[in-house]
Amino acid sequence: MRADDTVLERRKSDHGMGRLREDQFEESFLSLVEDLLPDRPTPVLVCGMAGARGGWREAGYVSVPAAPQNGTVSRVITNDSRIDVRILPGLSQTNPPDVMRGEETQIAGVLARNPEFDGVICLPGTHTKWVRVAGGAVLEFRTFMTGELFAILTQHSILRQSLDGDWDNAAFTDAVSQGLATPEDTSAALFGLRAQNLLATTGRGETRARLSGVLIGLELAGARSFWEQNPVILVGEKRTRELYASLGRLAPEVRHAETEDMTLAGLIAARSALKGEDV
Amino acid sequence: MRADDTVLERRKSDHGMGRLREDQFEESFLSLVEDLLPDRPTPVLVCGMAGARGGWREAGYVSVPAAPQNGTVSRVITNDSRIDVRILPGLSQTNPPDVMRGEETQIAGVLARNPEFDGVICLPGTHTKWVRVAGGAVLEFRTFMTGELFAILTQHSILRQSLDGDWDNAAFTDAVSQGLATPEDTSAALFGLRAQNLLATTGRGETRARLSGVLIGLELAGARSFWEQNPVILVGEKRTRELYASLGRLAPEVRHAETEDMTLAGLIAARSALKGEDV
Repeated sequence: MRADDTVLERRKSDHGMGRLREDQFEESFLSLVEDLLPDRPTPVLVCGMAGARGGWREAGYVSVPAAPQNGTVSRVITNDSRIDVRILPGLSQTNPPDVMRGEETQIAGVLARNPEFDGVICLPGTHTKWVRVAGGAVLEFRTFMTGELFAILTQHSILRQSLDGDWDNAAFTDAVSQGLATPEDTSAALFGLRAQNLLATTGRGETRARLSGVLIGLELAGARSFWEQNPVILVGEKRTRELYASLGRLAPEVRHAETEDMTLAGLIAARSALKGEDV
Repeated sequence: MRADDTVLERRKSDHGMGRLREDQFEESFLSLVEDLLPDRPTPVLVCGMAGARGGWREAGYVSVPAAPQNGTVSRVITNDSRIDVRILPGLSQTNPPDVMRGEETQIAGVLARNPEFDGVICLPGTHTKWVRVAGGAVLEFRTFMTGELFAILTQHSILRQSLDGDWDNAAFTDAVSQGLATPEDTSAALFGLRAQNLLATTGRGETRARLSGVLIGLELAGARSFWEQNPVILVGEKRTRELYASLGRLAPEVRHAETEDMTLAGLIAARSALKGEDV
């Protein structure tokens, strides 16, 4: 990026936390951007799992309630002097115990664009975050394992044999309603999908859609206190946000934002806050 | 077994449905019992997943309400004439869709021992069954994926890194109560276990116990209509039945039975019913 926040170039890699040892982050990062580096040190701002235990360097957590970027940035001592790396802290919560890394930067982005927003931010994903914000601060949040449950159930459970075929959106919507209305039935509903398939009363694309729907319905039931009386800003890729369409009928107001836009806005906000320092 | 139902010898193998192709069941079974076989054909009664699609031979389902052994027994044409193999059918249910294979034989065993029992049978396991019986018949049942969820979460989820250490029974009991009281929080409670661990507010043995407790609590919440006003017979290994100790405070009456005893009693009942035929 240029100093005026213009993006000059975007690069992506799937070599993240899950694939790298601590001592491989610098090399992996350099192999992605080396050709872009000038001779003088380039400031590099990092958010997300690179700051986790076992990541590039463990960065701390800011305990909520707090502004999402109100913590100590961790400087990484690199071997290569062309990069000056700082990792942004995550957020933590004592009761109920919870943590986030990466989403705090998207939240900072949402708040940079909507400084007066008083409501709820929902960030769906492997570990979906529901976040209450007001006055530029995160008041509380809760993480739901929705995406990870979907992943391990599709890959490792008895349901894995029943999941091919085209996505059935009507079945999905029905399952969301069912999961929301009777979350206590979740564990039985999951086996019921397998039984339906064995008894040949359902198509396989229907099973995949219903599995996703039951899990999102369970999440919506657990997150009721977040969405019930608050405006919601949904941050995600378009396809992911579509899975939360039923929220439009449940919450008083739903607005949408793109993950990458909000991450960038949050990183820009963090850089701006650091400008008083030596970045 | 002798004709008078005395057990002469027990053999076990872990080569089941998950490890065998259809054409390997006979060979696997023979390798287990071959030295016991006389020259004349020995009747072999089979229950469980050997009767599933992809098992030894697909046996049908009896649709409930029905007596648990009121269906057609499937004869297997074997290569070896020393065995005369019959597979008992499972049970199925149309609404909500559900199936069982193997547990129907344990249920038949419970009913053989308690012919007047009017109440609920709970069979915990990978796929825990809650079964309402009266007048010697299964009226309805529901399967909960509790054991499988525990297995895939301990093996494949982010929680797998937090699970060593000694079992904490107080934490387990607390988590059962929590899961039962707020089943809608399940997905958040699961991530909360990981967060607690990262924030170092909990020991690892506690995490494993709480994971098990949350899932059993979710099941108890979904099975409320079964146990709330009915006597329950709990069929399982001792250690598994101990996980359902809280049921003692919830159901009006809880009795215990051993899995193997009930399976054997059910197979004896099936053999007795077949005696009118050519077995």
